[in-house]
Amino acid sequence: MDEASLSAVSTPARIAEVGQDFEADEIALATRNHGLPLEALRYDVTPPGLHYVLAHYDIPDADADRWRIRLDGLVHEERLLDPAALREYPATTVRVTLECAGNGRAHLSPRPIGHPWLLEAVGTAEWTGVPLRLLLAEAGLAPGAREVVFTGADHGVERGVEQDYRRSLPLAVATGEDPEVLVAYAMNGQPLPPQHGFPVRLVVPGWYGMAHVKWLRGITVTAEPFTGFQQVTAYRFRQEPDQPGEPVTRIAPRALLIPPGFPDFMSRTRVVRPGPVTLAGRAWSGAAPIALVEVSTDGGADWTRAELGPDDGHRWAWRSWHAPWRAEPGHHVLTVRATDAAGQTQPLEQPWNRGGYGNNLVQRVPVLCLGEDADENADEDTGQTP
Amino acid sequence: MDEASLSAVSTPARIAEVGQDFEADEIALATRNHGLPLEALRYDVTPPGLHYVLAHYDIPDADADRWRIRLDGLVHEERLLDPAALREYPATTVRVTLECAGNGRAHLSPRPIGHPWLLEAVGTAEWTGVPLRLLLAEAGLAPGAREVVFTGADHGVERGVEQDYRRSLPLAVATGEDPEVLVAYAMNGQPLPPQHGFPVRLVVPGWYGMAHVKWLRGITVTAEPFTGFQQVTAYRFRQEPDQPGEPVTRIAPRALLIPPGFPDFMSRTRVVRPGPVTLAGRAWSGAAPIALVEVSTDGGADWTRAELGPDDGHRWAWRSWHAPWRAEPGHHVLTVRATDAAGQTQPLEQPWNRGGYGNNLVQRVPVLCLGEDADENADEDTGQTP
Repeated sequence: MDEASLSAVSTPARIAEVGQDFEADEIALATRNHGLPLEALRYDVTPPGLHYVLAHYDIPDADADRWRIRLDGLVHEERLLDPAALREYPATTVRVTLECAGNGRAHLSPRPIGHPWLLEAVGTAEWTGVPLRLLLAEAGLAPGAREVVFTGADHGVERGVEQDYRRSLPLAVATGEDPEVLVAYAMNGQPLPPQHGFPVRLVVPGWYGMAHVKWLRGITVTAEPFTGFQQVTAYRFRQEPDQPGEPVTRIAPRALLIPPGFPDFMSRTRVVRPGPVTLAGRAWSGAAPIALVEVSTDGGADWTRAELGPDDGHRWAWRSWHAPWRAEPGHHVLTVRATDAAGQTQPLEQPWNRGGYGNNLVQRVPVLCLGEDADENADEDTGQTP
Repeated sequence: MDEASLSAVSTPARIAEVGQDFEADEIALATRNHGLPLEALRYDVTPPGLHYVLAHYDIPDADADRWRIRLDGLVHEERLLDPAALREYPATTVRVTLECAGNGRAHLSPRPIGHPWLLEAVGTAEWTGVPLRLLLAEAGLAPGAREVVFTGADHGVERGVEQDYRRSLPLAVATGEDPEVLVAYAMNGQPLPPQHGFPVRLVVPGWYGMAHVKWLRGITVTAEPFTGFQQVTAYRFRQEPDQPGEPVTRIAPRALLIPPGFPDFMSRTRVVRPGPVTLAGRAWSGAAPIALVEVSTDGGADWTRAELGPDDGHRWAWRSWHAPWRAEPGHHVLTVRATDAAGQTQPLEQPWNRGGYGNNLVQRVPVLCLGEDADENADEDTGQTP
């Protein structure tokens, strides 16, 4: 090994030992990126700073005035777009639930070493921008066009490969009308925050986060399938490292519960008092609308149908649901399961793969319901009834 | 142990074994809270969503229209303040660098089990609100007043104790003019985000984060020192669990370097190419202005003085600094050390205590400088010069 080569700092993908605790590298990723604290599922649209964030490399130091997006490859007319020019097109706004393909990875056994998401790598925002299909139509697709490759300004090394973050979409997806891919410059009515792709990013409703290329600076129409790292090495469903694997694409169905009651600081176990508790949360799927949400309060033995919130017409965003529960003293495990209109449902056993992608195993929320008189440990004068 | 009591889910503080990896509980805290990605040290004022966040319990579901802050205890006239009423006072805005007292904990050996911050639990914001001393003067302090206790709406369990988050300040601090404690309702000119205390929080310039009570709903003037959990159990410097310990108060000096070059995704090791590199970052101290920043590029053997950025008059915010470096192929460890005008400087050996508080051990940034021709592993056509 050359001492001054990338292999000195960038190693192949690994799987942890069964039961192994988390490594310092995993902690370093978890402390700089972040998930959605699950109580923030209460908001229809996630407030800034609560939406999940994953940047593979550094957040670029972007200057909007000097930013250019090159549209090239198999087009009749190459374009050099700047953020101001994008604002001259009619604006489209779409509410999208975005989830990281690695959400759930930290619950897998054995655990692939990577970003240690538990269940919180999700968020919903209103994205505003220009439909990609309009920009492509304006440039004019040349014969043989097959894919569109998107290049971000974030630059780094991954598994020994130095790269700009780069992903492709099949032409039919890139020019599709439903979902419509956006070249977005605003989030919740404001310029994109730096960590969400300022000044311009891609938004691909219904797809996992890896497709929504941030800090977008290149759009290239190609005749051949893209073979870059993030397309053929990462984000593939594989059981063995030498398999080509199936590509990760659309978001699998998932329901999450707003953890009821209040938490213990360190264990995050939930505590409630006896009596009626409204269980509520969100459910989503990138393949089809949510058709059914079921809740179990006994760890998955019995299931009851939750009531879905009104269909507010936001097809690409999560849907609210709620269900009543009567808490009785003792330990409980709450579980929730979503099924979409395409018939996909969440598994009760983990769907393991080497990358830890698309793990939509049902959530399990341990809850302690206190006995009627179990408040002897309260700090003096706490006052509030939670 | 009563099965339905808090002791079933909330355990005493622990210290990890030397060299022990991180536990699932630590990961759960790290994925919901988050630090400042260190490249964001580039911003004078931290953009929303990049400033560090630590909520002990859940982020409350606050309704500003129904929010009230009770000011009571040893005052001549009790008050019930609402957020709108606070806006009728002349507004004060102060730029403050806020750091978690647990920043650096995850680097300690042995490591106290808690929020596993490496070095990123920091951020700088412009806070706007009403000086607390004006509110206290208006209510009128009664004889015997000694401390002011602040109650947040966040409710949970910690080490077996159910509590609202609650902290006190000595009366002299609460009514001080420099720093001036603020009852703040805006961050960077906008209403507080939910995770930063919406609708109202305390800001105590120069103090570690635990003093800046979020979701403020109570201000109580007392005759006796406050003995709640967050005051006498947590946030104390102790070597042994049965010591009373010294209280954690003002922020110790620290300098951080914006990691140069670009990262490896998993190891976060930095990679640069040979040649001149500008090292830059921020330094701060809660006790006195920053007097000196020194940089070492050989792991702490030799130190050179960095150039401080202009004194912009923001006494309670971090100060920028920079220093030149000529990178040569091979492995390097960059280190930076701040000294304040009170003569406090950062230690080269860890200042260990059982809570992992105030660990301002110098940062160490491993950097690989590639050889002149070490780009054979680049993904095709990456284009960008980092």
